[in-house]
Amino acid sequence: MQAKKKDFSEWYNEILESAELSDKRYPVKGMNVWLPYGLKAMNLIDAATRQYNEEAEIEEVGFPVLITRNQLEVEFEHLKGFEGQLYWVTRTGKEQLDIELSLRPTSESAIYPMFSLWIRNHADLPKKVFQICSVYRYETKHTRSFLRMREFRFYEAHTAHADFQDAEKQITAYMEIWSKLNSLFQIPSVINRRPDWDKFPGAQYSLAVDSIMPDGRTLQVATMHQYGENFSRTYDIKYTDLNGEQRYVSQTTYGMSERLLGALIGIHGDDKGLIFPPDIAPVQVIVVPIPTEKADVNAYSKKIHDILKSAGLRVKLDLRDNYTPGWKYNYWEMKGVPARIEVGEREVQGNTLTISVRGIKGKKTYDLMNLEESVKKSLKEHFSSLSERSGKVLKENVKEAKTLEEMKGQAAYFAYWCGKRECSDKIEAATEKPCLGVSVSHPGKGKCIVCKESGDRSMFSRTY
Amino acid sequence: MQAKKKDFSEWYNEILESAELSDKRYPVKGMNVWLPYGLKAMNLIDAATRQYNEEAEIEEVGFPVLITRNQLEVEFEHLKGFEGQLYWVTRTGKEQLDIELSLRPTSESAIYPMFSLWIRNHADLPKKVFQICSVYRYETKHTRSFLRMREFRFYEAHTAHADFQDAEKQITAYMEIWSKLNSLFQIPSVINRRPDWDKFPGAQYSLAVDSIMPDGRTLQVATMHQYGENFSRTYDIKYTDLNGEQRYVSQTTYGMSERLLGALIGIHGDDKGLIFPPDIAPVQVIVVPIPTEKADVNAYSKKIHDILKSAGLRVKLDLRDNYTPGWKYNYWEMKGVPARIEVGEREVQGNTLTISVRGIKGKKTYDLMNLEESVKKSLKEHFSSLSERSGKVLKENVKEAKTLEEMKGQAAYFAYWCGKRECSDKIEAATEKPCLGVSVSHPGKGKCIVCKESGDRSMFSRTY
Repeated sequence: MQAKKKDFSEWYNEILESAELSDKRYPVKGMNVWLPYGLKAMNLIDAATRQYNEEAEIEEVGFPVLITRNQLEVEFEHLKGFEGQLYWVTRTGKEQLDIELSLRPTSESAIYPMFSLWIRNHADLPKKVFQICSVYRYETKHTRSFLRMREFRFYEAHTAHADFQDAEKQITAYMEIWSKLNSLFQIPSVINRRPDWDKFPGAQYSLAVDSIMPDGRTLQVATMHQYGENFSRTYDIKYTDLNGEQRYVSQTTYGMSERLLGALIGIHGDDKGLIFPPDIAPVQVIVVPIPTEKADVNAYSKKIHDILKSAGLRVKLDLRDNYTPGWKYNYWEMKGVPARIEVGEREVQGNTLTISVRGIKGKKTYDLMNLEESVKKSLKEHFSSLSERSGKVLKENVKEAKTLEEMKGQAAYFAYWCGKRECSDKIEAATEKPCLGVSVSHPGKGKCIVCKESGDRSMFSRTY
Repeated sequence: MQAKKKDFSEWYNEILESAELSDKRYPVKGMNVWLPYGLKAMNLIDAATRQYNEEAEIEEVGFPVLITRNQLEVEFEHLKGFEGQLYWVTRTGKEQLDIELSLRPTSESAIYPMFSLWIRNHADLPKKVFQICSVYRYETKHTRSFLRMREFRFYEAHTAHADFQDAEKQITAYMEIWSKLNSLFQIPSVINRRPDWDKFPGAQYSLAVDSIMPDGRTLQVATMHQYGENFSRTYDIKYTDLNGEQRYVSQTTYGMSERLLGALIGIHGDDKGLIFPPDIAPVQVIVVPIPTEKADVNAYSKKIHDILKSAGLRVKLDLRDNYTPGWKYNYWEMKGVPARIEVGEREVQGNTLTISVRGIKGKKTYDLMNLEESVKKSLKEHFSSLSERSGKVLKENVKEAKTLEEMKGQAAYFAYWCGKRECSDKIEAATEKPCLGVSVSHPGKGKCIVCKESGDRSMFSRTY
């Protein structure tokens, strides 16, 4: 396998293929097949997303994939942002449709006409829903598994509130959901408020979670948009307030996608392959017997497997007899399994087990009596070391710059910026790094790196 | 609400609307919005489906929704079966596509080109995958929530085997999955082998699970198809066997859909509304405090709620102060919640709780000490009574007929049939009930009801 540090991009392509996460040979370009191992990881991400949304009282709904041209044309600015990327259904069987139907590129125009039916008075507010679905965007740029696809898995929350202040609270609630998710993922990331010219079509402002990739480029993995009344005025979403007056709702949205999986892979993996955080690992523990004639290693391994399985762990037993234990070690390391249990003659006779943790050197031997406890301890060790490495990526790949010259390296940079496009254009021209906006997660005040007027700590980097 | 026995169809429409399972006002005809309560039930059905597939070692995959015209045209018989119902994407942005793309009506033509890449030799077999997705069929008949939609939730398993015998074993394995699922659902049903003229396009034979609805019509809720080599020859799915020879695989498929939810609603509900089996109920227990000034019923109710929640039950506490307890009882009965806990002054002072079980008359009082146990016991009572009623529906609505005259009632009928289309056409002409095929679940031999030649017990009924 390619060394990750040497050529991250090549490494990413290779590991995706070896680990069998998705198959890009499907006959429609830019649309991949989810293979069982990759889909399992994505389903675990979705399960965590569902849980934290439920805790935040955002309810799951499911909207149709098709949106009429009429629905789309309601909000012109929004449509304009996606127009070139829409897939259009124009025929059913052999009949031309009177009203063409688009595959959803995102669901504002699907959901908001229903909000307008559902919301009548103040008791209906706040209205908070989310869905997990596939969306469709005809990307003209080079496509790439999980990072830029024409069909991709999407999470989108949409909320409506009595006023702007209540909608602002929702943006804070979204950041809390992100923070809970990232306590599982450990993705090194910065939250930035996008410059006005780069906000989502139809938004008053957009916050984005930019994850820091090992090559110093950033990858946008989540966005939160404040819509204010921009959509409620065009989609006619009104309620009767306590004084009997009709008012437009204020709206927000939160989006994430399968890019999260791409970020997890890119950030945590190493030269041996994938490294999954325990909560997202499709297989958390692999049990590998070391064949010997002196002990029944298979039966002992099976026992270990069964105990861990009934303890609710995702455990697998590799009994294949056409591969050596060494080959299996490499294979499951490549697949990113957090803990490996080796069972040989010594273990069976001593009633012990030997555990190796992915990403940590050495092995430890435990008593079989403490099986569940030892494995859980190992998963914690795994998570701590992964978390520590992730913190290092953030430190090493995000640098503070005082001059444009300092911003020319292979990293993402914080610099003070006055907010004017003129200045950020100069920065981009000199460094090839566009402005990602003022940092919300790492705020600070200082003089603009270009014009020296007062500014905010802002982020600049090349992006995926 | 309409009496269910008097007008089942009207009752079904009404309960769907009151219980807020889905919203049919979405601007694209035949495509509904999943509302939180309905989606939760469907997700629980899907979760059970995932579990039993995993136990049967069928792995979850995810295929793109779009299929090229070339992929579809490989298997002519199969395409012919769906041709009139396809949604065609012909344009992206403003550009016409060179090769038109169809929204999947089912995924044979999406999956089998990949099988042809994945399967190389005998070690790759059997290959067993499934996906849960939405499919698209432009129905020209009247659409109906969960029963006949243009976009609907679909489960499809696809397997490839070294030979026909191994594929036959898979059909048996499918019936075991169905049996596990139906031990949760308790849908009164019969498995029939469809007549040749009614089998799935491309199948050698088709088995169908026909559920018996309260009005004596049947609803097909699951199908299992033996493809033999029909698709492997056209999609070129070959493997090298142990002798080094190239052979075509034998294939099977198993399909189910959101119709399962429609069947559950239609079969178990009563004049008060829905009745969900405990495993599929979005809310299993509702706690309703009865306001009084003499005791803190809300705090006591909250305590009950929290204990049950941490025991893993799906429990909800109805603290709304603008509705009376009586109104809430009716509301949650209508929503099909299996158990209701009432908390009044008497309960708080006696440290007890009063449980009503949906579909069973009377109430029982338990000691708070035995909370979890009492609730679980109540859910079991609920399930037994639901299961008993379901058995009655099967008995009352499926009748054995010896003459065509006997088959004219409002029920489904078993009759012996020789297998000739001529005879089943005569039966249909006389009774308006088409032939669903020879019964696999209720086999028997006798003389054909029409020509008196030897025949098999077969089913005839009007269908949804």
